[in-house]
Amino acid sequence: MDRRETIYCRRHYSEGSNREIIIDLEDITIMTNLNVTRKLAEYAVTHKEFNDQAVHEAKRCMLDWLGVAFGGSSHEGVDIILKTGSCLGNSQIATVIGRNEKIDVLHAALVNGFMAHVLDYDDTHLDSFVHPSPPVWSALSALSAIYPINGKEALEAFIIGFEVETRIGKVLFRKHEERGWHMTGMAGGFGAAAAVGRILGLTVEQMQQAFGITATYASGLRSMFGTMSKSIHPGKAAMSGLYGALLAKNGFSSALDVLEARRGYFEVNASESDLQAAVEGLGNSFEIFKNSVKPYACGVVTHPIIDGAIALRKQFAANQSDIERVEIEVNPMVLDVTAKENPSTGLEGKFSVYHCTAAGLLDGECGPKQFTNERVNAHDIAEVRKKVSARINKNYQTYESKVTLYHYSGEKYSHYVPFAKGTENNPLTDQELEGKYKSMAKEAINEERADNLAQFVWNLNDKVFLSDVLKQCSSEEFIKAGEG
Amino acid sequence: MDRRETIYCRRHYSEGSNREIIIDLEDITIMTNLNVTRKLAEYAVTHKEFNDQAVHEAKRCMLDWLGVAFGGSSHEGVDIILKTGSCLGNSQIATVIGRNEKIDVLHAALVNGFMAHVLDYDDTHLDSFVHPSPPVWSALSALSAIYPINGKEALEAFIIGFEVETRIGKVLFRKHEERGWHMTGMAGGFGAAAAVGRILGLTVEQMQQAFGITATYASGLRSMFGTMSKSIHPGKAAMSGLYGALLAKNGFSSALDVLEARRGYFEVNASESDLQAAVEGLGNSFEIFKNSVKPYACGVVTHPIIDGAIALRKQFAANQSDIERVEIEVNPMVLDVTAKENPSTGLEGKFSVYHCTAAGLLDGECGPKQFTNERVNAHDIAEVRKKVSARINKNYQTYESKVTLYHYSGEKYSHYVPFAKGTENNPLTDQELEGKYKSMAKEAINEERADNLAQFVWNLNDKVFLSDVLKQCSSEEFIKAGEG
Repeated sequence: MDRRETIYCRRHYSEGSNREIIIDLEDITIMTNLNVTRKLAEYAVTHKEFNDQAVHEAKRCMLDWLGVAFGGSSHEGVDIILKTGSCLGNSQIATVIGRNEKIDVLHAALVNGFMAHVLDYDDTHLDSFVHPSPPVWSALSALSAIYPINGKEALEAFIIGFEVETRIGKVLFRKHEERGWHMTGMAGGFGAAAAVGRILGLTVEQMQQAFGITATYASGLRSMFGTMSKSIHPGKAAMSGLYGALLAKNGFSSALDVLEARRGYFEVNASESDLQAAVEGLGNSFEIFKNSVKPYACGVVTHPIIDGAIALRKQFAANQSDIERVEIEVNPMVLDVTAKENPSTGLEGKFSVYHCTAAGLLDGECGPKQFTNERVNAHDIAEVRKKVSARINKNYQTYESKVTLYHYSGEKYSHYVPFAKGTENNPLTDQELEGKYKSMAKEAINEERADNLAQFVWNLNDKVFLSDVLKQCSSEEFIKAGEG
Repeated sequence: MDRRETIYCRRHYSEGSNREIIIDLEDITIMTNLNVTRKLAEYAVTHKEFNDQAVHEAKRCMLDWLGVAFGGSSHEGVDIILKTGSCLGNSQIATVIGRNEKIDVLHAALVNGFMAHVLDYDDTHLDSFVHPSPPVWSALSALSAIYPINGKEALEAFIIGFEVETRIGKVLFRKHEERGWHMTGMAGGFGAAAAVGRILGLTVEQMQQAFGITATYASGLRSMFGTMSKSIHPGKAAMSGLYGALLAKNGFSSALDVLEARRGYFEVNASESDLQAAVEGLGNSFEIFKNSVKPYACGVVTHPIIDGAIALRKQFAANQSDIERVEIEVNPMVLDVTAKENPSTGLEGKFSVYHCTAAGLLDGECGPKQFTNERVNAHDIAEVRKKVSARINKNYQTYESKVTLYHYSGEKYSHYVPFAKGTENNPLTDQELEGKYKSMAKEAINEERADNLAQFVWNLNDKVFLSDVLKQCSSEEFIKAGEG
């Protein structure tokens, strides 16, 4: 930005008397001097050190992303996006996961990002509340339809994208999210831009431009939760990051310092935040090691409660008539995000910690089946939901909880969860993660193809292309295989 | 939204002690009870009273939009968007104004909106600072490639779109714009959604959904000013409103009360604003009568200054060596938006009231030629720029100014402008507007075709289709005509 602009304003304002436009130059100088945009761009373009563990995490992310995308591929929202896209003059060159349609590159990023989020079953970076895989994997895979990307490059680009989106997200979170923005919609695009830009070989300056374009596309309101529009956010992030990187590659101009600029991304969205957090330890530490993979198909803040409810169910086979009441003790975010008392649809059930508690107690699981319209409206689960009351414990972390069940017999059972299943200190094993993937992949393709695809992902390297992964994701191939 | 959610939160917070998520239920109730989203949706779907004057204004908007789009059609940003779009698997069915390429429907909305804004020469609604024509006309014209829209329907849909985007803009402005958002990027999409949704025959509820989708796509940072990314905002607004209406038509779900909802559009973006302003007098008064059509190709707040400078130039033929110094007196927004002291590109010149003053004094005009890189860097104009100093007068409106020239002879010349040329109380005549249009249209097509197209627009009615207007805008047709 033009520094003289602000200085000039101030000079003239001392003559006049209008307070409103005087800005604190010192604050702005501090922000501008951080060069966060440039540092992240340099990192995205040049970083070369990737240890095997980080690459393995990236494979886990890909497999989990594919699984939840297969799971979401039959959602009616996908039908609507594909139907809408098909009348807009777009050709069929990019894979739509789990479907026999193909679509143009930008819509592929959009729809694959949508389906990977619509079950609320995708991974979460708890320090930023960004869902990291859908924006980045959806963008990279869409690009692979028109650009050669080998497996090694794809995994490294993904790690970089993960790093950029979650670091930007960490700066915004939690104030920004409380204000009403959906973190993945706001920060996810930067991950997509970083990953795609790296693959396209952007210069550092072009990467800064790509971040600028992505920033001015960033959006996503929390008031969309419980509707299909929530899940368009990660798709939109994938699309805008991909598009921003492509535009920048072709010479489109943007602000070079969008993150720290006066009236830039951070000032507009989170003026009092610590920008330094976005670049601290950059290149030495990896946010990907702090990823959470969901064992349950609903808002991640409900997971420690579900762990507790399932544990109590194992202790004694609960049924509706045994339960007098249930008390849950939770981090404050739980009621901020998932306090729907009487959900009436599957999507709403995902935002009801009461429903999640009841499902854990009655069904012993919280997979996609517990969040169908039918199950949410079933009598037994509705009865138990009513018996659940919540208590805030602000010393609890988002991965922590306690569930206490008061039995009609007078007995009281309590279970404390220090780390929810799937989070950093209690991760899913590779086998558990693959099991989650397979439960959904086999429905969209067949079991044999789902198994083969999983092996393909675990063995991904520089000898194969990302487009080879995508080829195995289309149900068209399945139909062809069936015919042959 | 689920009202019980917020009530439940409060109940539980009184037990705990965490202050952060307690919200004021009364405020929310007031906002929710306004039903602004529903009222605007009903209006967009059902309004039938259009007087001839409003329809005539809509024609003026269309002609002005076409003119500035022709003017911007040769900008390198258009080349970049078309080049980028062409590799993404999109087919060629929609007209790109002033070009021989065609492109898919969504990209047509994007690129036509971009080119109509890139000269900073498009119309402005001063009460909201929304540039109303690019989002709405670009969306409607893109839709016309796949959907029959007659001239009467198009003009009425445009009036509705204009109304919706500027009324939402009025609620946000000026706090929202000061914060760092670009008004057209944030509010323009609602105009596009309203106009397109009306054409598509959305139900009231579907229109509410369309507004929800558009709201969660709304973005655009002011830190992009002076770069190509600024002009992508109106294009993006056109695209997202069009896409939102199409998705809603096909059954995509969103929040039904996005404007007034908890964590909805107004709360997130402008929590302390008066929502009532969005619906006051709806159906009886028309914002389109408050539109400004720019006589100069730069930020609208510089226009009263340019009027003053041109008036002084007429008084005595100024040249660089006559001028000792120049003092301008302006509304506070002028320096907030256009205080670039030493612009080095044409785009930056548009955001320098100093450059605009110098151009008015030396050239006697401020058309696209005064904002080329070459003119901005010319020695004579740079010398005069340095001699200009600005003074804030907070009693001045944005259409008001005073320019005082101190001559080396010792003489002092002053000119006060009560209403800038082109604004509500000093509008361009139809002839002046057509002259502006023709100066740019004849460069993109030829003079005869430009004249014919103008007549076609003035005579637009229900007997012809919007697609017939668009057919005359492609330079491909021109090439064909030349061949024949």
